[in-house]
Amino acid sequence: MANFDGPGFSMVDKSWIQTKAIDVETSTDISPYLSRILEDTVWNGNRAIVFDVYWDVESVHTKSTLRLSSVKLSTKNFCLFLRLPNQFSDSLKDLYRFFASKFVTFVGVQIQEDLVLLKENHGIVIRSSLEIGKLAAVARGTPIVEFLGARELAHKILSCDMSRLDSIQSKWDEAGGNDRLEAAAIEGWLVYNVYDQLQQ
Amino acid sequence: MANFDGPGFSMVDKSWIQTKAIDVETSTDISPYLSRILEDTVWNGNRAIVFDVYWDVESVHTKSTLRLSSVKLSTKNFCLFLRLPNQFSDSLKDLYRFFASKFVTFVGVQIQEDLVLLKENHGIVIRSSLEIGKLAAVARGTPIVEFLGARELAHKILSCDMSRLDSIQSKWDEAGGNDRLEAAAIEGWLVYNVYDQLQQ
Amino acid sequence: MANFDGPGFSMVDKSWIQTKAIDVETSTDISPYLSRILEDTVWNGNRAIVFDVYWDVESVHTKSTLRLSSVKLSTKNFCLFLRLPNQFSDSLKDLYRFFASKFVTFVGVQIQEDLVLLKENHGIVIRSSLEIGKLAAVARGTPIVEFLGARELAHKILSCDMSRLDSIQSKWDEAGGNDRLEAAAIEGWLVYNVYDQLQQ
Amino acid sequence: MANFDGPGFSMVDKSWIQTKAIDVETSTDISPYLSRILEDTVWNGNRAIVFDVYWDVESVHTKSTLRLSSVKLSTKNFCLFLRLPNQFSDSLKDLYRFFASKFVTFVGVQIQEDLVLLKENHGIVIRSSLEIGKLAAVARGTPIVEFLGARELAHKILSCDMSRLDSIQSKWDEAGGNDRLEAAAIEGWLVYNVYDQLQQ
Amino acid sequence: MANFDGPGFSMVDKSWIQTKAIDVETSTDISPYLSRILEDTVWNGNRAIVFDVYWDVESVHTKSTLRLSSVKLSTKNFCLFLRLPNQFSDSLKDLYRFFASKFVTFVGVQIQEDLVLLKENHGIVIRSSLEIGKLAAVARGTPIVEFLGARELAHKILSCDMSRLDSIQSKWDEAGGNDRLEAAAIEGWLVYNVYDQLQQ
Amino acid sequence: MANFDGPGFSMVDKSWIQTKAIDVETSTDISPYLSRILEDTVWNGNRAIVFDVYWDVESVHTKSTLRLSSVKLSTKNFCLFLRLPNQFSDSLKDLYRFFASKFVTFVGVQIQEDLVLLKENHGIVIRSSLEIGKLAAVARGTPIVEFLGARELAHKILSCDMSRLDSIQSKWDEAGGNDRLEAAAIEGWLVYNVYDQLQQ
Repeated sequence: MANFDGPGFSMVDKSWIQTKAIDVETSTDISPYLSRILEDTVWNGNRAIVFDVYWDVESVHTKSTLRLSSVKLSTKNFCLFLRLPNQFSDSLKDLYRFFASKFVTFVGVQIQEDLVLLKENHGIVIRSSLEIGKLAAVARGTPIVEFLGARELAHKILSCDMSRLDSIQSKWDEAGGNDRLEAAAIEGWLVYNVYDQLQQ
Repeated sequence: MANFDGPGFSMVDKSWIQTKAIDVETSTDISPYLSRILEDTVWNGNRAIVFDVYWDVESVHTKSTLRLSSVKLSTKNFCLFLRLPNQFSDSLKDLYRFFASKFVTFVGVQIQEDLVLLKENHGIVIRSSLEIGKLAAVARGTPIVEFLGARELAHKILSCDMSRLDSIQSKWDEAGGNDRLEAAAIEGWLVYNVYDQLQQ
Repeated sequence: MANFDGPGFSMVDKSWIQTKAIDVETSTDISPYLSRILEDTVWNGNRAIVFDVYWDVESVHTKSTLRLSSVKLSTKNFCLFLRLPNQFSDSLKDLYRFFASKFVTFVGVQIQEDLVLLKENHGIVIRSSLEIGKLAAVARGTPIVEFLGARELAHKILSCDMSRLDSIQSKWDEAGGNDRLEAAAIEGWLVYNVYDQLQQ
Repeated sequence: MANFDGPGFSMVDKSWIQTKAIDVETSTDISPYLSRILEDTVWNGNRAIVFDVYWDVESVHTKSTLRLSSVKLSTKNFCLFLRLPNQFSDSLKDLYRFFASKFVTFVGVQIQEDLVLLKENHGIVIRSSLEIGKLAAVARGTPIVEFLGARELAHKILSCDMSRLDSIQSKWDEAGGNDRLEAAAIEGWLVYNVYDQLQQ
Repeated sequence: MANFDGPGFSMVDKSWIQTKAIDVETSTDISPYLSRILEDTVWNGNRAIVFDVYWDVESVHTKSTLRLSSVKLSTKNFCLFLRLPNQFSDSLKDLYRFFASKFVTFVGVQIQEDLVLLKENHGIVIRSSLEIGKLAAVARGTPIVEFLGARELAHKILSCDMSRLDSIQSKWDEAGGNDRLEAAAIEGWLVYNVYDQLQQ
Repeated sequence: MANFDGPGFSMVDKSWIQTKAIDVETSTDISPYLSRILEDTVWNGNRAIVFDVYWDVESVHTKSTLRLSSVKLSTKNFCLFLRLPNQFSDSLKDLYRFFASKFVTFVGVQIQEDLVLLKENHGIVIRSSLEIGKLAAVARGTPIVEFLGARELAHKILSCDMSRLDSIQSKWDEAGGNDRLEAAAIEGWLVYNVYDQLQQ
């Protein structure tokens, strides 16, 4: 079973998120990490995986300028951060299959454009996804939350201390790798908890 | 009449699901099995066939990366699992016709992307389909169930013991063929029962 | 005036449906039969023609795999079943014109995909059509009926004995030509009566 | 000013519809007739022109099979019926301009497909149009009227004697030119009166 | 500052509309007139410019048959009528920029098709537009006003005397240039006042 | 950290907006300014960046006539105005990345067409955006505010003195660079405050 041997971070409710960041190369086998994520959401979670995707700008001279550069997957206990190579190799087939799975629901914030870009630019299909802001807007009767980012959405629903996240994100360009990983873990944890709240 | 001579599984309500898994090859005649499925839903069911489709990743270098690799069809008493070949042959015409039939309603979970991919990538049209999560959300007035996977949807509507399914799915990569077939049968049975509940 | 000299069938309410099945060939003149159908819906019906279309699978290797193989048209007293040739000839122009007519409303079950395929694959346009399940869902306030097939829809709205239809459809592959024609007539009659109920 | 010197017909409320049928050829000037129609709807009507379009089937072997063959324009006192030639000539520019006018609202029944076909097949744009069935469904709270043809829609809203129209339409293939013109005039008058009712 | 030295017209409420009609040629500088319109809506109006566009039929033999031939812009005090040349020249860049401005809202009647044609046929984008009929239908709870032309819409909302407009429009083909300009001014003034009413 | 050393402007509530206008050239590094904007919205704002985009007309002879010429980004304390070159260079990659960020929500007025044009003409994707007029219409129950420009929207929601903005915009063609920058700052500040109001 894969070992999430990256740094662990304590959340404001004292829960612990164990992280793993991987530079995916041709020979990298990411499947053990995906399996661990899957197992965690089945046994400790509610079959939801919070995800975020990050894009790089290939060129400003073409119309399809964006290339998928990283993927974040968060469950109750884990945060997996995959840095993808410029050229996709077959080692990513496992990721394609994982996104196409219906064992779980992929939960994200403002994912409408992402879903289009994933399919158009890379042929990646997420079959079971949930735009959590839209759901929150309906469930809580507050239209504005549909349009908020992860931090503000969580602020509206959970009202917990966000100073650590703000501190990192406000100085993003100067932030080190571990700080950025911590921010990713916090955001994932926030969205996970928003989803948990909306379930009840 | 086709013989469902694969393993049978007992569900948590003591009902029995008889399964059949078939590797479809050029010479395979799947029509007797489809006929049996049809007969079962007419006489023992409510003209609904629960279905799921599974995709394989052909390549990460093209835009239409997904190929239909398996199809699951579930009724009250049966679960048919068809593993499809890499190259489709005319033996699959029966499956195309079956999906295009209006004798029954094809019931699935999170099928929107599947319906698009079936038509775009393979020219398969399901004329009479039902996204059960959407229906459940309207019928029960709980928006979140629209976005859940089969397991969580059933959990919300039926509240029955799911430990066997969880046990298999949490260790999917290590699961053997019979365990995977059992998981498929359980998921089909769960969705069938959700549909049955919503009918009332 | 065309003679519906095929078999006649008694429905469960003792009404009588006279049928006619035609293999349409290059020299076939179907217009007298269409005229008779039209006359029946004007004088004995409510200007609604229940229709169903049947598709054959040309090939599993192309994207537009489906070819219109048969058309069923039902009114209060008649059921016309047209088996179409592989190559369409000008004898079908009358059918194209008939479908484009606004004298009547063409009523069907789960016809959304059919309307798309008729236009995309054959250039056939039905200008005045009615998806009866959607209407029933709104009119009766029961969302599920939108997604049912003809038999289950009729079961929900009319609650009449369907054993004859079930008997034929459950053994479809073994059914003879007359049995299939009877099933077609029964389904048409059921949808016609659902429409009649919803009118009131 | 154009002379509507075709036959006149008495409607069931004793109003009188004066008709004109024109075979539009290259040298035909239809503008005086369109001007007369316009004047009538400004002074005697409510700026609504009831319209219907008729299509002919060019061929069953191409995807865009339908060609605009006739146009009917109805106001309170007039019914203009234009039979169009196989090849459109510049004499039809006046009709194109007329349809693009916003002086009036073009009112029709089941016109959704027509509007698409007019634009796709001929580049004709009706800028101000009204699908009267949809409006009636909302205004009267009876969903079914959205899907009815002109005759049934009028039957639901106006409840007047339709035997003359039924008599002609039930024997359409045998109907003579004047009978068909009368049916066209009656249908136009019916829709005009439905619109009038809905205005109040 | 541009001089609106065309004829002025008195409206039924004694307000005065000063007009200017311009044949736009390669050397024409329309920007002073657009600036005057802008200034009027900022100081005397409510940042709304009522607009209408007119199309000419290029040919009946092509699919994109319509060419923008004139543009009308109305504010509280002014009505600018631009007759455009067959070949667009860079003197129209100011008009393109004006339509793309967000200083104001462009208000029109039945503009859905116009917005599509402006973009498709000419690449003109109106970024801030308002279909006033739709708004009136929602604001007043009367669905029919969504589908009316400018005259009938104003008739429903304002109930003022329209005999002058009717008089000109009923004899449009015989109307002189000044009469047509007056009709344009009246229609613009009507829509402006409808918008004013809906604001309150 | 970037220095906003352009002119500062006092708003009607005595708050102070510090501006910076930059002509972006191949060698320009805009990232420090974007970082400063980001920091301000994290610490002093609510993770919303008000944005506006400006288009220039390339040519009236092509269908995609509009080119992104400027971008305005406003937060609580800053207003950044970027004038873009005719040919985009890699110095704009930072802007592309900034717009694709989900740290913040990009708030704009009448942005629907802009979002389409940004993607179609330049491949720029704003993943998290908010059309504030639509939100205001829902939140306040006043449909008309959906269609207003920034000034009128703010007028309805905030009711503050707008004479300075009106004064500049009414004479836009004669306005100097600093006046235009002040108008941009005022509009950004207005929208920012509308958003702030709607949050409560």
